[in-house]
Amino acid sequence: MRDLSRDVSFLSINTATLKTLTLRQAVETLSRHGIGAIAPWRDRLAECGVTEAARILTDRGMIVTGLCRGGMFTSGDASDDNRRAVDEAAAIGAQCLVLVVGGLAAGSRDIADARKLVRDGIAALLPHARAAGVKLAIEPLHPMYAADRACINTLAQANDLCDALGDGLGIAIDIYHTWWDPDLAAEIARAGKQTGRILAFHICDWLVPTRDLLLDRGMMGDGVIDIRRIRGWVEAAGYTGHCEVEIFSAENWWQRAPDEVMRICAERYRSCC
Amino acid sequence: MRDLSRDVSFLSINTATLKTLTLRQAVETLSRHGIGAIAPWRDRLAECGVTEAARILTDRGMIVTGLCRGGMFTSGDASDDNRRAVDEAAAIGAQCLVLVVGGLAAGSRDIADARKLVRDGIAALLPHARAAGVKLAIEPLHPMYAADRACINTLAQANDLCDALGDGLGIAIDIYHTWWDPDLAAEIARAGKQTGRILAFHICDWLVPTRDLLLDRGMMGDGVIDIRRIRGWVEAAGYTGHCEVEIFSAENWWQRAPDEVMRICAERYRSCC
Repeated sequence: MRDLSRDVSFLSINTATLKTLTLRQAVETLSRHGIGAIAPWRDRLAECGVTEAARILTDRGMIVTGLCRGGMFTSGDASDDNRRAVDEAAAIGAQCLVLVVGGLAAGSRDIADARKLVRDGIAALLPHARAAGVKLAIEPLHPMYAADRACINTLAQANDLCDALGDGLGIAIDIYHTWWDPDLAAEIARAGKQTGRILAFHICDWLVPTRDLLLDRGMMGDGVIDIRRIRGWVEAAGYTGHCEVEIFSAENWWQRAPDEVMRICAERYRSCC
Repeated sequence: MRDLSRDVSFLSINTATLKTLTLRQAVETLSRHGIGAIAPWRDRLAECGVTEAARILTDRGMIVTGLCRGGMFTSGDASDDNRRAVDEAAAIGAQCLVLVVGGLAAGSRDIADARKLVRDGIAALLPHARAAGVKLAIEPLHPMYAADRACINTLAQANDLCDALGDGLGIAIDIYHTWWDPDLAAEIARAGKQTGRILAFHICDWLVPTRDLLLDRGMMGDGVIDIRRIRGWVEAAGYTGHCEVEIFSAENWWQRAPDEVMRICAERYRSCC
């Protein structure tokens, strides 16, 4: 298992953690803290345009651990937008395009049907992604988002989809969404049997109490997730990539100065992860 | 599959749905609506004393579909309190004692250890429950409660515990907690292979959006759960008991007149379940 305590060379910051900053501001902030990897959301690219975004990232030599997000396969025809997301991921050299797959279709109570729509949607997007050289990363979301954000809620489901749909598809493991899963260790090991299936590793913490379903994620060390144990499983499964910090926190971290947030992110990454 | 549309003979009301009423008031309210089954929480027994509670229930001929709750095996020594809960369940003739098993131990991040504590705690309680003739019903709670309420979060875990610990132990299936589970149908069928393992069936609905992790459950029909499909699985697994309505709803149903809530519960039970 890697020793993360010495530096921040495997730390990546998701732009959701720095909600108030433009892409350029985020990159400059990260650079001040010696952080060389980032994962932007598409709204941050849209603000400046993809070409300019690519330039901003390249100028600072940023590693792009992922682009958030494609997916939403259950809400009407998302295929054009998903192809654009693939193209944007290619343009900025993202290591993967993260898929938030979508919840129930509008007006539907049929979660099995939603899961079929997701499978079909990924299958339809994969040829374009392969041609563009962009890996698609299914992100299982916490079951509390099954209705409205993602009906893929366990690593087992994501592994099943990868087994079924083949090359070019992998998984983004976010500990916030998966820490509770009794099959987590086994399914991480299963993912590890396929080289390169684990495409991203997202970290933050689960607070007790959690005051909001969406916007109350915790900084690493402030909650109850045994981050180091899960990272151990992920690395034992062959993952050598970054730890990407993605914290949605309307009442706490989004209220603080970005430099303070980055300082604490780096500290906690080195001491708690 | 049973036709529930004709009457309310298999409808039970959990006292959490009628938060503001004493046990006597709840029983009288149910009786006015022709509802003959109830599941009290222990605070409702404590208010009047268990002997008086038993009398109130017997006088109205109430079927008691469960007593809520025992459990909390991970928070210090709950064994005395759990034995008292068994005795109370016996005193009121409850069909089961519902176990909310507890989350992480205080200060711990080790969910595997919490799950061991739960197993040990149930094993230690079972002899007393068997002697008292009280069935223990493990209730898997939604993963969003894994940290602070229950580290048993899937029906698969509950089935595993029942397989391991033997007679006198079963499961309370609450659709609010389990509707998202990709293994739900399979694990209900698995439970059905053991006669009498499914001890209770709790219903309400999952609202979109859900505004609070604890107190924003929906009335049947107002959310996205395919209640009838899940009831079909449960009945195909041999369950012939009641559908127990348990709605925690601080901003909506707890604000309404109990008679209105019961009228709508009965309507929705007959039309949506």
